[in-house]
Amino acid sequence: MTQQIGKQSIKFDNEPYILESASVVGDKEGNGPLGALFDNVEKDPMFGMKTWEQAESECQKKAVQLVLDKADITKSRLRYMFGGDLLAQLIATSFSAVELEIPLFGLYGACSTMGESLCLAGMCVSGGFADYALAMASSHFASVEKEFRFPLEYGNQRPYSASWTVTGCGAVIVSSTPGIARISGITPGKIVDWGLKDSMNMGACMAPAAADTIYQNLQDFERAPQDYDRIITGDLGTIGSKILIDLLKDKGMNISGCHMDCGVEIFNDDRQDTHAGGSGCGCSAVTLSAYVLPKLKSGEWKRVLFVPTGALLSKVSFNEGESVPGIAHGVVIESMN
Amino acid sequence: MTQQIGKQSIKFDNEPYILESASVVGDKEGNGPLGALFDNVEKDPMFGMKTWEQAESECQKKAVQLVLDKADITKSRLRYMFGGDLLAQLIATSFSAVELEIPLFGLYGACSTMGESLCLAGMCVSGGFADYALAMASSHFASVEKEFRFPLEYGNQRPYSASWTVTGCGAVIVSSTPGIARISGITPGKIVDWGLKDSMNMGACMAPAAADTIYQNLQDFERAPQDYDRIITGDLGTIGSKILIDLLKDKGMNISGCHMDCGVEIFNDDRQDTHAGGSGCGCSAVTLSAYVLPKLKSGEWKRVLFVPTGALLSKVSFNEGESVPGIAHGVVIESMN
Repeated sequence: MTQQIGKQSIKFDNEPYILESASVVGDKEGNGPLGALFDNVEKDPMFGMKTWEQAESECQKKAVQLVLDKADITKSRLRYMFGGDLLAQLIATSFSAVELEIPLFGLYGACSTMGESLCLAGMCVSGGFADYALAMASSHFASVEKEFRFPLEYGNQRPYSASWTVTGCGAVIVSSTPGIARISGITPGKIVDWGLKDSMNMGACMAPAAADTIYQNLQDFERAPQDYDRIITGDLGTIGSKILIDLLKDKGMNISGCHMDCGVEIFNDDRQDTHAGGSGCGCSAVTLSAYVLPKLKSGEWKRVLFVPTGALLSKVSFNEGESVPGIAHGVVIESMN
Repeated sequence: MTQQIGKQSIKFDNEPYILESASVVGDKEGNGPLGALFDNVEKDPMFGMKTWEQAESECQKKAVQLVLDKADITKSRLRYMFGGDLLAQLIATSFSAVELEIPLFGLYGACSTMGESLCLAGMCVSGGFADYALAMASSHFASVEKEFRFPLEYGNQRPYSASWTVTGCGAVIVSSTPGIARISGITPGKIVDWGLKDSMNMGACMAPAAADTIYQNLQDFERAPQDYDRIITGDLGTIGSKILIDLLKDKGMNISGCHMDCGVEIFNDDRQDTHAGGSGCGCSAVTLSAYVLPKLKSGEWKRVLFVPTGALLSKVSFNEGESVPGIAHGVVIESMN
């Protein structure tokens, strides 16, 4: 098959489109540098619900409804949904999906989930298995702190290498009919484990996986970094981004001129005390929707490599002394122009 | 597209095959009614490792190596892997996949994961995106008891409606070249929540989702129950199976003549004190590999509907008083004869 190119990539013969996208974020994200770009900034961190997990589900529901409204289609047109979050057993997604009544493929790729969902929704639509598929990922600062670290009430101090989990959900409709952009290819990523164990420096844990996926994408598609207007990692933050650029320089690739990291863009550390940057599945998902896709839609950017990055960490594995492996999934998104 | 049939199913124009499969289980499963059929029965519940989570990863690694050996291909031929387990953040899968060095799509569908992985690997291969893809799911009694219920040392009593989590991993290679069976269609499932909250009666929680997927499969493919040699649910157990049959009778469908449940088959409650039956992602995965696929390979069965069932439960959602929604993914597998 000609669609399989290189070692691990796909170049779609039958390109799936991104019909529409939507972003819903919390107050802190609304006050950040990208604040004015998000579709919906919710002031109440509880989203009107009783628990942090319900709040995250509610955030997902809002984003899904919004993308349906923007695309002007009903939920019954969505044949399948591909989505996930960071919580154990994906409870934010499971509970939000009850009302949607769409067949669900639950995904866990840590903060790479938006990449994983776009890869799978892309294959699904390109293969003719759906005309409309939903790709979605979310995170919530408070549900994630509870899941992975300390209760908020504990007032734990955070080192400068730590990132701040984004509260937000990005939802994208992948379609067989033209939309605001097109998915021309994907490079699903392998797990890469360099043995790092510092859950307060996840940028460093994920950078080797990001480097691996970006390197493989450039090899498989026989491209140079400058063939992309931007190579956009998910949530490496300031420290992980520096490591990524160094790792690729060691392999003879200089991406410093076109690299952008959603975690670096979404917060302003000087004003917002977010340290290394934003993180969480929601970070790359909402930045894609609010910042990246509009630039592709307008034609300002022609082609980007979107590479959400995940740190495969759990409190059990961490407490058992295991390392924090990384994973990163690459999605090539191009302008319709 | 003609591949999309009915409300939520796919009938593959280009049918993917099951090239080979392998099953690795623990001692209790080896002593059960299907014991002689499994490829590998491991006497040591720790699989030679130091933690339950590492044991489950090791079980996965053995199953993957075994299916590669049986198919006589190297791991580098596997373009993508689709797999998951029940642990928070899929740590059994994440850590086993490090050594495999294959791009990973991490999946969470609770105990329906083998169905989810076969649906996605099937679409991936049918669409021409891979020639060989791995579909896999595992569970481990001890890692799961720790994840969802009580420490083993606590000696908690189990009601008769409770199931016993299977220790095991089933691994299947889905291929574009003919093998031991073929995947002719799929019916990915929706989340169905009837508000049940008893995590010690998961059969009842999952039965409505199983009924929904089976009903939709029969509608979408315009089939009657007798068009399948077996309709095989994952881990409803004795109580859930009875509810499933009653629910479908209410809709005018009688599957009692051809229904089989992997959770009922895998243990003998009289001898093994397993109560309602086996459960866990591994339950349907190893039964598929050891019992179902050989009957399709021999031609004794011509066509089955394999429907792994999942209970979307976490200790957080349970402790917050949430219900236990269910999900079930249907895979139509047919004999090559």
